[in-house]
Amino acid sequence: MTISAVFMRRLAEIAAAETLPRFRDAGAVANKLAEGFDPVTEADRETEQAIRRAIRSEFPEDGILGEEHGLENPASVRRWVIDPIDGTRSFISGIPLWGTLVGLTVNGDAVAGLMAQPFTREIFYTEDGQSFYEGPGHQGSGGRQRLSTRRTPDLAAATLCTTTPAYFKGPSAEAYARLEQKVRLARYGTDCYAYAMVAAGHVDLVVETGLQPYDIVALIPIIEMAGGVVTAWDGGPAEKGGAIIAAATPELHGAASAILQG
Amino acid sequence: MTISAVFMRRLAEIAAAETLPRFRDAGAVANKLAEGFDPVTEADRETEQAIRRAIRSEFPEDGILGEEHGLENPASVRRWVIDPIDGTRSFISGIPLWGTLVGLTVNGDAVAGLMAQPFTREIFYTEDGQSFYEGPGHQGSGGRQRLSTRRTPDLAAATLCTTTPAYFKGPSAEAYARLEQKVRLARYGTDCYAYAMVAAGHVDLVVETGLQPYDIVALIPIIEMAGGVVTAWDGGPAEKGGAIIAAATPELHGAASAILQG
Repeated sequence: MTISAVFMRRLAEIAAAETLPRFRDAGAVANKLAEGFDPVTEADRETEQAIRRAIRSEFPEDGILGEEHGLENPASVRRWVIDPIDGTRSFISGIPLWGTLVGLTVNGDAVAGLMAQPFTREIFYTEDGQSFYEGPGHQGSGGRQRLSTRRTPDLAAATLCTTTPAYFKGPSAEAYARLEQKVRLARYGTDCYAYAMVAAGHVDLVVETGLQPYDIVALIPIIEMAGGVVTAWDGGPAEKGGAIIAAATPELHGAASAILQG
Repeated sequence: MTISAVFMRRLAEIAAAETLPRFRDAGAVANKLAEGFDPVTEADRETEQAIRRAIRSEFPEDGILGEEHGLENPASVRRWVIDPIDGTRSFISGIPLWGTLVGLTVNGDAVAGLMAQPFTREIFYTEDGQSFYEGPGHQGSGGRQRLSTRRTPDLAAATLCTTTPAYFKGPSAEAYARLEQKVRLARYGTDCYAYAMVAAGHVDLVVETGLQPYDIVALIPIIEMAGGVVTAWDGGPAEKGGAIIAAATPELHGAASAILQG
């Protein structure tokens, strides 16, 4: 079974109702800090609870794993994986590159995903084996636009994104630096937004390390169903997180993997 | 005389009509590249020409300096300074942190400014000695929200932005690294959007080098009229570009300057 666009849109709306009022809310930040609370943690928790309620109501037997509230129904072969606010550093800096991530795995394989950015009013999601965009500027039929990665021919023409090169340590730092030297353009600080831009055909590679499953599960099918490839650096499945390569094409994925593996 | 909000909004609309249709237009990029044209350069040129026409029509005797088309009316004490698309690397990567910058100097001092991000439908601008925001989530009266920087007490609590640390070379790189070690959070890749976030109270410091006048003139009054300070690293005027510190408060500006000057 597929997850419908209707349900994906509902999850995005539910998340936006929790995240948006807390984004750029300087008063709330100051008050909460004075009271000893962390407003981002509160937004994370409330958003995840709201998403869990929606999933439980529609799919009561499914497993749910989230950043803030752990795992429920652990025996289910279907498992939803939630990051209520991916990119909290962007969130607290007023920069709209954070997103709400909701993915679905079946027996550990990511099969459906949603990335929602409510400030820009954008959603990127899968349905029936394809990836779609809804937001400003979309011109597709049915109120949405089908996503496809771009066919950048080689690394010398590629745009690469990563959160910050400082996350790579030791041999990983050397491997990342080798790759960055080969590409046309490297961009930092893009969080989950960079993966959405791979699916949409504006970025060619995202390379990161130290990811949790909830940082990546939702994004895997969005990129794969747009024509891209997402794996661990060693070529294994990306669903467990860790060191990740997301690429617009199999050829770029192969070229980047070869360089990262030295 | 001040520049009215009405005129600032008109400039933003004129720019958006040129930039937005070319943002994320993968078809146009591919076609133009095949024909040997650079779509970003085209967007830059057309946007700047449109802004020049609007300024010329309203203020025919004023000087105008732009990134793409040089200086007109060079003898005027009033000079408009235009960067049609600041953050072209974000623009070509689909990331909505670029902006159109239009500033006004009188005898070399920046006295009015506009930063417009049309994809997020945000404008940041000055009027009558104050800075304002119009866009999603604003709750001010009169359809706009007054901007003010936040009162972050010290560097240890500050958020710092820069385009990329790779732009700093030699002693500048060491100076920047010293500063980054002192702050709570550093963010990269934020382009002109970071300066808008200083004015809006979500970011505390922007430190950059190698800026042109058109990269910074529009942003100086937006930050200053919101309570911040913008200078060159040596404390001189920022209007000529070069190495720049933008700070939310005079105290943060002093602390950052001391560290950068070693």
